[in-house]
Amino acid sequence: MTSEAVMAFLQWVDLIGVLFNAMLGAVIARGARMDIIAFLVLGIMTGLGGGMIRDTLLQVGPPVALTDWRYLTTALCGCGIVALIHVPKRWWDRIWPPIDAVAVGAWAATGTMKTLEHGFGVLPALMLGTITAVGGGFVRDVVLRRIPGILGGNTLYAVPAILASGVAVVFHHFGMTVIGSVAAIVVGASTILLARWKGLVLPVA
Amino acid sequence: MTSEAVMAFLQWVDLIGVLFNAMLGAVIARGARMDIIAFLVLGIMTGLGGGMIRDTLLQVGPPVALTDWRYLTTALCGCGIVALIHVPKRWWDRIWPPIDAVAVGAWAATGTMKTLEHGFGVLPALMLGTITAVGGGFVRDVVLRRIPGILGGNTLYAVPAILASGVAVVFHHFGMTVIGSVAAIVVGASTILLARWKGLVLPVA
Amino acid sequence: MTSEAVMAFLQWVDLIGVLFNAMLGAVIARGARMDIIAFLVLGIMTGLGGGMIRDTLLQVGPPVALTDWRYLTTALCGCGIVALIHVPKRWWDRIWPPIDAVAVGAWAATGTMKTLEHGFGVLPALMLGTITAVGGGFVRDVVLRRIPGILGGNTLYAVPAILASGVAVVFHHFGMTVIGSVAAIVVGASTILLARWKGLVLPVA
Repeated sequence: MTSEAVMAFLQWVDLIGVLFNAMLGAVIARGARMDIIAFLVLGIMTGLGGGMIRDTLLQVGPPVALTDWRYLTTALCGCGIVALIHVPKRWWDRIWPPIDAVAVGAWAATGTMKTLEHGFGVLPALMLGTITAVGGGFVRDVVLRRIPGILGGNTLYAVPAILASGVAVVFHHFGMTVIGSVAAIVVGASTILLARWKGLVLPVA
Repeated sequence: MTSEAVMAFLQWVDLIGVLFNAMLGAVIARGARMDIIAFLVLGIMTGLGGGMIRDTLLQVGPPVALTDWRYLTTALCGCGIVALIHVPKRWWDRIWPPIDAVAVGAWAATGTMKTLEHGFGVLPALMLGTITAVGGGFVRDVVLRRIPGILGGNTLYAVPAILASGVAVVFHHFGMTVIGSVAAIVVGASTILLARWKGLVLPVA
Repeated sequence: MTSEAVMAFLQWVDLIGVLFNAMLGAVIARGARMDIIAFLVLGIMTGLGGGMIRDTLLQVGPPVALTDWRYLTTALCGCGIVALIHVPKRWWDRIWPPIDAVAVGAWAATGTMKTLEHGFGVLPALMLGTITAVGGGFVRDVVLRRIPGILGGNTLYAVPAILASGVAVVFHHFGMTVIGSVAAIVVGASTILLARWKGLVLPVA
């Protein structure tokens, strides 16, 4: 595959993450028997929140979610699918984990690479990579008056995101952004699936 | 009326919205028997929060709430009025709904027009128009550990804001920003008052 | 002391505030028996949150927390110290109050001066000085589903921050930024310690 083909592939992975995370937000709204506005608010927040926080902090131009029409459109499609089609819970539980795992890795990679491309250091890159990956769900949980999952959930999210960001940082250092993004996704997704499969949790301090 | 006179009128509507929403924030603080700091925090948040979120996301310069001294001054006046003058609840309940309705329409119009003027697309304009209109109350509710009204309140706020933004988008497309703002206010305010009067709620999904 | 020496001293005070506030965030995470991720999230939020909100609103470049490596490093050190070393509660209760008081004053001074240096008015300077000083703890409390301390705590935080900002504004007006920062710290810290010592609270409205 050429570099362009890989980049196009990564872009698709990014948008698929937006689609399914927006669907997750809408699924949560439906579970709480909320109305269509809540579908949109929670869907957009979950699907686009992480990237919007990243871009707002980076201050290198408006959030890509506002300038690239595909992002908001994709998030709205995710909300629409959940509102119109009844996905059986059995299917959702089978489809969601692998796609979610890939999305966390992809978002961590995107966030890390973007931060490094704009000349920031390694620590900000790790932080913004992780925020890109888990920020949307974090904000959604705060709005719903839940303790955010990464502060005490039983699924490891933040550690795979940090690992994926770390992988992206290393590959970027050697000038390999495309293959580094793929490697970050593989590491992030496999770590998250392994943690879910083994029921791993972090020890309390 | 000339275009300048209409623009000056719209500016006044915007600031009256800030005044009364800041007063609402302070009224909520007084209802919870909080101190003067809470008056200021909740008043500024409710009165200026939506516009500050919009401007932070747009990244086209610092929030107008920081660069135009009239905004913070107006918000502080709102807090001061509530702290110093005892407005009888009977009056407040009569004055508040129409002014609130006009403010939601005005803020949606302002947010939509500003987003379009800076070259963003229709979807971001609808989103930021709505955020301008309902964002301040949203953040205030989150801080007070309430589920934000638009996620499950019995008053329709978000739908009128989206409608008003939509009207603004259509008029802006035909180059009529001034008359479009007025139309957006009329549509937003009348929808919100109708919903309140008829006790309309959105169906759950 | 020369001006440069005072500036270097102020920079140290700023970073010591970051260190101890990050430690406070981590201490809260440990008290709630959370894992290492929560240490990092709450530590970074408490130590760097106020300044990041200030810089995001000012829109004069990315947050200093992202561009100056010492900030994130110091916050991470604070988290690490709490994770690795058991500081006896008796020590912490004796060390924390004076350092916290100085940090609130220092952050209020920094935030006010930075806002004024970029040409904003007195009201934004007071607001952003106060947000720099109390914003991190505010966000942390919201995330932990607590009513933020400054909205109803029994320790006066916001008033000393506003006083310190006011002192900074006055000195800046006469071109004395360095001595003004020191004066702001003295006023902020002594007010906060006095309030704590006397158990002062604001009257409810």
